[in-house]
Amino acid sequence: MGKLLCGVDLGGTKLSVGLFTREGEQVDKLETKEHAQKDNDGITADVIGSVKEILSKNGKTDADLLGIGIGVAAHIRFKEGLVITSSNFKTQFKNYPMREKVQSHFTVPVILDNDANAQAYGEFRFGAGLGRRDVIFMTVSTGIGAGIIINGKLVRGVTGTAGEIGHTIIDYDSQQMCTCGNKGCLMAHSSGLFFPSLYRNKLEVGKNSLFGFAPEDVSKVDGRLILEGMNQGDEISSEIYHESARIVGFGVYNLFQILNPEAVIIGGGLMNLGPAYLDEIQRTFYSLVKNMMYDRMEIILAELGSNSGLIGAAALPLEQS
Amino acid sequence: MGKLLCGVDLGGTKLSVGLFTREGEQVDKLETKEHAQKDNDGITADVIGSVKEILSKNGKTDADLLGIGIGVAAHIRFKEGLVITSSNFKTQFKNYPMREKVQSHFTVPVILDNDANAQAYGEFRFGAGLGRRDVIFMTVSTGIGAGIIINGKLVRGVTGTAGEIGHTIIDYDSQQMCTCGNKGCLMAHSSGLFFPSLYRNKLEVGKNSLFGFAPEDVSKVDGRLILEGMNQGDEISSEIYHESARIVGFGVYNLFQILNPEAVIIGGGLMNLGPAYLDEIQRTFYSLVKNMMYDRMEIILAELGSNSGLIGAAALPLEQS
Repeated sequence: MGKLLCGVDLGGTKLSVGLFTREGEQVDKLETKEHAQKDNDGITADVIGSVKEILSKNGKTDADLLGIGIGVAAHIRFKEGLVITSSNFKTQFKNYPMREKVQSHFTVPVILDNDANAQAYGEFRFGAGLGRRDVIFMTVSTGIGAGIIINGKLVRGVTGTAGEIGHTIIDYDSQQMCTCGNKGCLMAHSSGLFFPSLYRNKLEVGKNSLFGFAPEDVSKVDGRLILEGMNQGDEISSEIYHESARIVGFGVYNLFQILNPEAVIIGGGLMNLGPAYLDEIQRTFYSLVKNMMYDRMEIILAELGSNSGLIGAAALPLEQS
Repeated sequence: MGKLLCGVDLGGTKLSVGLFTREGEQVDKLETKEHAQKDNDGITADVIGSVKEILSKNGKTDADLLGIGIGVAAHIRFKEGLVITSSNFKTQFKNYPMREKVQSHFTVPVILDNDANAQAYGEFRFGAGLGRRDVIFMTVSTGIGAGIIINGKLVRGVTGTAGEIGHTIIDYDSQQMCTCGNKGCLMAHSSGLFFPSLYRNKLEVGKNSLFGFAPEDVSKVDGRLILEGMNQGDEISSEIYHESARIVGFGVYNLFQILNPEAVIIGGGLMNLGPAYLDEIQRTFYSLVKNMMYDRMEIILAELGSNSGLIGAAALPLEQS
């Protein structure tokens, strides 16, 4: 057996660690939620501990690994291995040297990257991107992010924050406020975090809610409710469903014009809204692209599902080798 | 003296050929407009002839060259060296194998690319991008295009049409029609080709023209007139000046979020609108980017001026070596 891949998927609520073969087959996987209440060093100690635990449980040492990849739901300064900042953890990270702290416990290379890049690389090596060289992975969920792969390598940019497609402006004249403080961001018009405010907007212009929601109690509006509403004939839910997909389609189109990739792979929670959601994204894209596309760009579903962050993190050392 | 660079800048009205040192110093340059009335093969014969002419005039053969780069105002299928299509020539190109036809006359490599990529590479090697690895060149002129350089290489995409930032949508709800048939494209809201329609829009909502234009005679509105109008106190001109720059700033911001480059270099005819135009682009960008930028991205003027297409084309063989 050749060297193994070890990945850590570090989110605010869940910390997963996995061992994989170089072909992406899972050897073992552990999960914990104990890190969630801890500070920076405590979380890092849990990352280190979880890697040591899965190695020891499987009778391995770090010498059996090609490397250790860590995907974090955070802004990462890639070259230096710092967690710049994150809104996903109870503790505040501020240019925290996580890679160096983990690296000091292991002899094999440790790679620290953000979760969207890890997912993108996972799909590229082991999922929907297999056999392609220029692909973009987009996660459409609470927010929207992307990982860009060109000529087989992740495009990280000078800091490491490339791929923030969710904060690109798709309506410069919009009044729809994003968490970043700007108006008209792609995610502010389409992602799950904004379903409540998009619902409220429609109530405020006089549309009726089949659920009887008043503008002040839209906080329970999420993807599940929108899907239920659409199936029950709630007009507002149906509009949000289709508009969200249509606006994601505009985002995909903008990526096409800028990067001309072979495929855009879409994952994330909103893809559970069903095939009509992906259909609407595709229909929007192809209606915009018309005769400007000379090699057909496919828009395809991610294949690795909820495991994509973990297997993607594990795959990161392959990019360096 | 080492090998020389030879570049051809092929536009609809002008064909330039230049010899440069590897350091980008011009050895000689010739221009012709005779190609403008010719068909595909006639234009290609003029490209070949102009290269042979400049070589012979300087006592050189193609063995003295590192390669020949051709930048064309057209969509290029890069790997195959085809001119896919162009709206800039009287003749129609349709998947025309220009590279192969030129290559058959020379022993050194011939590279065919579009003009924005050539300009971008020229600025990267010899102009405002010097010393950087991840830069984007944007040309803001009649239309808007870009060339993207990541880790020192042009990003061309699967066909070769990456960089079409002008056709990204920055207002999905817009009624402003672009030449591509979509509404809300970046260029439809900001580039010179649309100054007449932007002027007419303002007349139609009741604004007064200091020039006394009626909606049906805006065709003479161009960058020069907008600048003159602004200086003379024409309110519509002043609004278009600032809105155009502001919307280019949104485009720059979107490039930042997607690619996180070190710098965006801006060239093209509208940069002759003066420093206030660049100021407004920069102000818009920095007001949007707020705390999302961890390494300062500069927005800088292109340095190679009207020669950038030629020197950029000449530089293209350096990318391959």
